[in-house]
Amino acid sequence: MQTTSELDFRQISWRTYKKKAVNEIVAELGNKDIISTDDEDLKTHGYSEWSTVNLDTLPVAVAYPRTTEDVAAIARICHKYRVPLIPFSGGTSLEGNFSAPYGGVSVDFAFMDRILQFNKDDMDVVVQPSIGWQDLNQKLANMDAGLFFPVDPGPTAKIGGMIGTNCSGTNAVRYGTMKDWVINLTVVLADGRVIKTRRRPRKSSAGYNLNGLFVGSEGTLGIVTEATLKLAVIPETYSVGVVSFPTIREAAAAAAGVMRAGVPVACMEIMDDVQMRVVNLSGSTAPRTWKELPTLFFKFSGSKASVAENISTVQAITSRNGGEDFEFAKDEREQKLLWSARKESLWSMLALRKNDEDVWSTDVAVPLSRLADLIEVSKKEMDSLGMFASILGHIGDGNFHESIMYNKNDPQELEKVERCVHNMVNRALNMEGTCTGEHSIGWGKKESLLKELGQETVDVMAMIKQSLDPRWILNPGKIMDVPWLPKETHATKADVAVTPIRRLTKQRASE
Amino acid sequence: MQTTSELDFRQISWRTYKKKAVNEIVAELGNKDIISTDDEDLKTHGYSEWSTVNLDTLPVAVAYPRTTEDVAAIARICHKYRVPLIPFSGGTSLEGNFSAPYGGVSVDFAFMDRILQFNKDDMDVVVQPSIGWQDLNQKLANMDAGLFFPVDPGPTAKIGGMIGTNCSGTNAVRYGTMKDWVINLTVVLADGRVIKTRRRPRKSSAGYNLNGLFVGSEGTLGIVTEATLKLAVIPETYSVGVVSFPTIREAAAAAAGVMRAGVPVACMEIMDDVQMRVVNLSGSTAPRTWKELPTLFFKFSGSKASVAENISTVQAITSRNGGEDFEFAKDEREQKLLWSARKESLWSMLALRKNDEDVWSTDVAVPLSRLADLIEVSKKEMDSLGMFASILGHIGDGNFHESIMYNKNDPQELEKVERCVHNMVNRALNMEGTCTGEHSIGWGKKESLLKELGQETVDVMAMIKQSLDPRWILNPGKIMDVPWLPKETHATKADVAVTPIRRLTKQRASE
Repeated sequence: MQTTSELDFRQISWRTYKKKAVNEIVAELGNKDIISTDDEDLKTHGYSEWSTVNLDTLPVAVAYPRTTEDVAAIARICHKYRVPLIPFSGGTSLEGNFSAPYGGVSVDFAFMDRILQFNKDDMDVVVQPSIGWQDLNQKLANMDAGLFFPVDPGPTAKIGGMIGTNCSGTNAVRYGTMKDWVINLTVVLADGRVIKTRRRPRKSSAGYNLNGLFVGSEGTLGIVTEATLKLAVIPETYSVGVVSFPTIREAAAAAAGVMRAGVPVACMEIMDDVQMRVVNLSGSTAPRTWKELPTLFFKFSGSKASVAENISTVQAITSRNGGEDFEFAKDEREQKLLWSARKESLWSMLALRKNDEDVWSTDVAVPLSRLADLIEVSKKEMDSLGMFASILGHIGDGNFHESIMYNKNDPQELEKVERCVHNMVNRALNMEGTCTGEHSIGWGKKESLLKELGQETVDVMAMIKQSLDPRWILNPGKIMDVPWLPKETHATKADVAVTPIRRLTKQRASE
Repeated sequence: MQTTSELDFRQISWRTYKKKAVNEIVAELGNKDIISTDDEDLKTHGYSEWSTVNLDTLPVAVAYPRTTEDVAAIARICHKYRVPLIPFSGGTSLEGNFSAPYGGVSVDFAFMDRILQFNKDDMDVVVQPSIGWQDLNQKLANMDAGLFFPVDPGPTAKIGGMIGTNCSGTNAVRYGTMKDWVINLTVVLADGRVIKTRRRPRKSSAGYNLNGLFVGSEGTLGIVTEATLKLAVIPETYSVGVVSFPTIREAAAAAAGVMRAGVPVACMEIMDDVQMRVVNLSGSTAPRTWKELPTLFFKFSGSKASVAENISTVQAITSRNGGEDFEFAKDEREQKLLWSARKESLWSMLALRKNDEDVWSTDVAVPLSRLADLIEVSKKEMDSLGMFASILGHIGDGNFHESIMYNKNDPQELEKVERCVHNMVNRALNMEGTCTGEHSIGWGKKESLLKELGQETVDVMAMIKQSLDPRWILNPGKIMDVPWLPKETHATKADVAVTPIRRLTKQRASE
């Protein structure tokens, strides 16, 4: 898109701009600790060992704001010098969401990790971006108010990134996704202005649903510095059970049966034979081991009577569909072990890597009726390639993950993985599905998004982006490409970001 | 904002533009029936007897498209001539949402009222904008698939308007609001381009959540011509019960107790003594009559066992809070009667009007813990004014409606009503609430929105509007004022709508 001479020009202006911006942030905030340019720090903020995509570029500085006002000042200065800003919290995203294709300042919320308000009677909580969802739930448990936050992505995810990606997790089949749990957001806009999306009612029809827009926008429209979240009542009791099936198709049919019967399961997860083997190999539920067959994991919650009733309905449905031996965790400890085996599946897979191996983990979602077809064909393809690959997912949402192990230094293996993922995404799209149910687009899935929704829909997204961030400094290059010379807007060349693309040599093809 | 000479200029250009636009629509669509300029038609599309605000302006034509392509052609032509477009479906909105402050073409979807696809196994349905939610549910019941659409606003509301206002209703405490049930939308943009917001997965994190943005945008960002909606499983059984309380505060405390206990009630509604009297007077549940006391209406749903369990928990909570004599509908017929008494409360109130009387009905929502305070103070104020006014609402969402009867020809009464509503909205805002929980902003609550969120947040909404509709032709003047000369955008004077404001003489003060 750019000629070399344009890039060179940008490179020169950028060096000056960057230095000026960093100096001005330090001068304005009066605190040298707020900015780091330490090499290790830059690396941990631009590279991820579990992401499907890594760029050879890194941020040029990491900022550690303490307050919304700090973030506003940083944004104002970066806006002035046209320096990109990339929000960072847990760093667990999978599609290069916090990578720094154009350098810029990574804004790490490490020091903004507190609960600011707990409104017990209103069943809500006001938090900063870097509190983890598990930490939040631990703190809520300590307050003994019988409330919890139900969105449960990867264990180390934090609220800021969870808002950015509109994440979900195993609880989504019962409780929905991140966008369903946000009451209001404090957002720093591209130029440093600060807005609040709503006041604090649990329901509102007042103006555009900015919560819904900012959630899932991956920091490309504004930087969230505070969030008011709804809380749910902790159920009286839980039960966890697993049931295995001869084939993945029978497991999927059983899951569809549970959905169509309207059983309010708390969670319903599928893990294939390979993933069950990973659990056994990891030893995380030792001494207990599991049949290495396609398996449904269920969590039931509610009153004792309703849990018993739901279990009996689900048992009937699964056994009608070939399910064998419904087994239950025998106590709370085993429930936790079992569920953590599911929750830590990606980490278990990563732990099995040898020297040069890497894991490509990605997700898609399709209408419920197509899930079995998609899983079956995708598994067959992986098996035929002789790769170690597993499937697991949130089957009640039509959403699943594929994790493939490969030798990252073997170009042929890399090519095979890429083709596998590419084919799976295309199959999902052909079944009216989406290229991502919960991981979001980041840098890695931009082409898939375009294929999924078409240029005109992505153009609408770009028009919104352009209106709120005319200099394209907010996490540029994520979700959509930076339109250096935007079509059909009033922006001139001088209005768009002028920071350079640095050495994109090792960039993986975006499936 | 405009000088008279500017207005005159616009008036002249407008006459020419309007004629050209209407002629071109007829010529392009080759069907005279697609456009009506009949006086009665214009009136029913610009005036509403139950809206809190009516303008003296009317649309200049009503278009009756048959397809998305018709709507796209109409938009393309109106865009060319800068003629406003106002979508219309059920016409039941309450805040002047479909009024025509700048004239323009009302787009009535009367002929687009069908189910286009029913995907039973995926639990979704594709519909056109003018299907009513009751009609949709009747059709689904006839298909006997055990599925229903759970969003239940006023009985005659239609899907198009329900999307526009992000409506909800009595089921919201269990099932959420309109935005939670949309899988994808087909949207005609201001210039006639057509986009689809998503494919058909129930869950997605692919790019900006355009569903969330278009739902609740009142037709100001695009015109929805098709919607894919999630469906829910019809519960095995229902039960409806009512319990009265000595005071509204005790009723509110009981409701809060039910929420905090996490009882999954299907509905939980409050009606004050006056509203119970309206039900009795309307005779809609005859021969049964009700105590004219603050009353909670409950709907329970689920399996027989879980319904029985929920009823017993709720009975315990209500009796601890002063609830008297939990009474149940004795059969399905009585359940329906009872619930329709609640659903038709606004119509019951309208039916009691004498000659010159009108009803002002509006809604607010606050954090749960503040609901009792707000209702108590607001009722006191209404009583002290000696007006016939009732309160009812979706108490589990912190959302309630106030309906006040007044003589529309008595300026003093009108002034009293306006002050009452104004005070209630301000009180809600002071309690961190919203000026509307489900009716949306329309023309009537623009000042309240500004007070609720502040200029900078409304500016963000305006920037989004400007980016998708630079000529401000889509339902202009709703949610926010038309910025004839927008600040901080690249638009020139020639880029913004040039249609005139006609005779805004009788416009009521906004809320």
